[in-house]
Amino acid sequence: MRIGIVTIGNELTSGRVQDANTAFLARQFHLQGWRVLVSLSVGDEEEAIAAALAFVLPRVEAAIVTGGLGPTADDITTAALARILGLPLVLDEEVLRGIQGMFARHGLNWTENNAKQALFPQGTEIIANPTGTAPGFALRREGKVIIAIPGVPAEARRMTREGVVPLLRRAFPGHARHAATRTLKTFGLSEAAVDQAVAGLAPPGVEIGFYPCFPENHIVLSAWDDHDEAAAWARLRAVEAEFERRLGGYVFARDEETLEGVVGALLRERGWTIAVAESCTGGLITDRLTDVPGSSAYVERGLATYSNRAKVELLGVPEETLRAHGAVSEETARRMAEGARRRSGTDLGLATTGIAGPDGGSAAKPVGTVYIALADGTTTRCRRYHYRWERRRVKMIASQAALLMVKRHLTGEKDPL
Amino acid sequence: MRIGIVTIGNELTSGRVQDANTAFLARQFHLQGWRVLVSLSVGDEEEAIAAALAFVLPRVEAAIVTGGLGPTADDITTAALARILGLPLVLDEEVLRGIQGMFARHGLNWTENNAKQALFPQGTEIIANPTGTAPGFALRREGKVIIAIPGVPAEARRMTREGVVPLLRRAFPGHARHAATRTLKTFGLSEAAVDQAVAGLAPPGVEIGFYPCFPENHIVLSAWDDHDEAAAWARLRAVEAEFERRLGGYVFARDEETLEGVVGALLRERGWTIAVAESCTGGLITDRLTDVPGSSAYVERGLATYSNRAKVELLGVPEETLRAHGAVSEETARRMAEGARRRSGTDLGLATTGIAGPDGGSAAKPVGTVYIALADGTTTRCRRYHYRWERRRVKMIASQAALLMVKRHLTGEKDPL
Repeated sequence: MRIGIVTIGNELTSGRVQDANTAFLARQFHLQGWRVLVSLSVGDEEEAIAAALAFVLPRVEAAIVTGGLGPTADDITTAALARILGLPLVLDEEVLRGIQGMFARHGLNWTENNAKQALFPQGTEIIANPTGTAPGFALRREGKVIIAIPGVPAEARRMTREGVVPLLRRAFPGHARHAATRTLKTFGLSEAAVDQAVAGLAPPGVEIGFYPCFPENHIVLSAWDDHDEAAAWARLRAVEAEFERRLGGYVFARDEETLEGVVGALLRERGWTIAVAESCTGGLITDRLTDVPGSSAYVERGLATYSNRAKVELLGVPEETLRAHGAVSEETARRMAEGARRRSGTDLGLATTGIAGPDGGSAAKPVGTVYIALADGTTTRCRRYHYRWERRRVKMIASQAALLMVKRHLTGEKDPL
Repeated sequence: MRIGIVTIGNELTSGRVQDANTAFLARQFHLQGWRVLVSLSVGDEEEAIAAALAFVLPRVEAAIVTGGLGPTADDITTAALARILGLPLVLDEEVLRGIQGMFARHGLNWTENNAKQALFPQGTEIIANPTGTAPGFALRREGKVIIAIPGVPAEARRMTREGVVPLLRRAFPGHARHAATRTLKTFGLSEAAVDQAVAGLAPPGVEIGFYPCFPENHIVLSAWDDHDEAAAWARLRAVEAEFERRLGGYVFARDEETLEGVVGALLRERGWTIAVAESCTGGLITDRLTDVPGSSAYVERGLATYSNRAKVELLGVPEETLRAHGAVSEETARRMAEGARRRSGTDLGLATTGIAGPDGGSAAKPVGTVYIALADGTTTRCRRYHYRWERRRVKMIASQAALLMVKRHLTGEKDPL
């Protein structure tokens, strides 16, 4: 089944807003096994909308139109579609009462232009909008389906999942597949390395996508079955284990999990606490750890010891260590991790020290040099890294490597790098 | 002048990648005073590319095609355009030597498929690609201009600014305007409030754009002149001052400036230092401050004192204060700011304590309650905020309010809120 997407709005053609709906819609349709043949953006003008539909409709079974369903004067999509298709506009009393009720519940002032959102081309099927005022609608034309939904991304996404996809599945039975997807989040592998690691691993009906998401690389496995979602999941699971095996310790989380969430769950499971001493990462590791609800149960403190004085006072790093080896050194990183742990009475002490740049590098310790140390009271591990990124990315990638070191310590995994 | 944009790639029609080029191109063209009539995305298929061009070309003076210029088998744009326009493909020896030289300089292995990027439809003008291997090209057809550039966003952006826009200005003299733009970054004003504040302020030839960028709202002023960039800037400056006056202290930065950069520059100017004590913001303020190159000159330390013990040990918050008022209280925030300053020997001490959620709220102190305090050794200011956002956004908006408090302290501005 072929689909066309038409997004409408002057904010798109002037570049004021980046279209977020097309990629989302295309992904949802792709998962159903449908093919998006073309997507178009045009301004809020009837002539342009008509031209776009005239281009799309002969080429597809279904056309999805987003945007221009709101109450204001520049929202012309509904009226334009009605005129283009030669249909009168009809007021839907039930929808009108629904919109008025929503205004009353939220204590908003009713203005007459809002009634516009209850007008639809005659003979349409209404698509509910659970989070906004403008419903969508669908109509049939010579065996084809034309669907209009609002352009507000949050509304468009929910209505696509709950309204548009089920409606199209009913309208074109036998054309939809069932899908199962799994995201494997990896760190430390390039696209080429992933390609090589999993070469020849995807059987027919399973697709691999690669999505860089700095500093992570996400691998999305999608499996389909023509008849049955459980069969799609079975197909996915049959290859998932082998993917994970080949990608080894590079996979640190799945689907909606985050690295800080995984580390937090492991700490919580053991009843362990952590203190973080950050020099070059400047608070980012602690910021990430404390993004997880309930992290106060295991994050005792984070110390962004940017100055040498703070390293000495707060972590007990010997001045002699700083003098002999410098603030950016393995010795300092180790003393920072051990001091953070000892002074705060936690189970683990994590530390970073490095040169985020753009200045401050030397031949022996160039910009991008980062030491990461982890102390557990028995042993202290330390690794040196060298990153070739700009300042913010050095902070991001170093925070990732540091959290990964904690994760591997807690699980007993080997470091594959 | 009307323009059409055609983006090519299966990764777009399958939703695997969100098209980042169309909005950028549209914005650049809009600034020139040109009108993007339509943009389309199609897959890597000659038939679809031909259909897209057949739709676009009769409607516009210029068509920009992005994507599919690379070395791999699915990069078919150049060959497809040549066939569609009935032109033979010709090897450009100079481009070929350039690509081979780039491979040699980067120590990459040359593979024969890379030579494909030196093939162009006969009679085209080459558009240099300073950051990648595949150049773009332009050709004329019945008074219209067709331009192809790579889809890699970083390459497409630079080539648009340096190649495409100048080429189109030459091709259609008299159709381009000169533009001047200014971004005013505000915090604490809604779109409706901005609308009201600046109503009637934009004369003809000046446009106002509003771009939410949580927790900031960016107002972009654009001014045009048909003949002269200096005249466009004069037109912009004539309204800019009045905009700033009406938006008052809500504007905290301009163009590429960031709040942390502005605060850093002010601290540096005075030779002042700062220590930050963060509870609910969990390191985010320090992370932002240390994103600025050279921030080690004024960030002495950041203390994410998540536990009460850390607040007592590191900041000297009296246990009695914590017992009597709780960790989330004005009294604790004040003692944290004062303790951070005193213990670290800095000029300023900044502190946050609050309930980021989702749990931990009470009737008196609901989730989203945040106290922010700033101590300078003479006085300590403290404000209470209540944010109705989820955890991450509470952290973001609280870090913004805290940095703004520092900025206003340094400039002596009044708080307009």
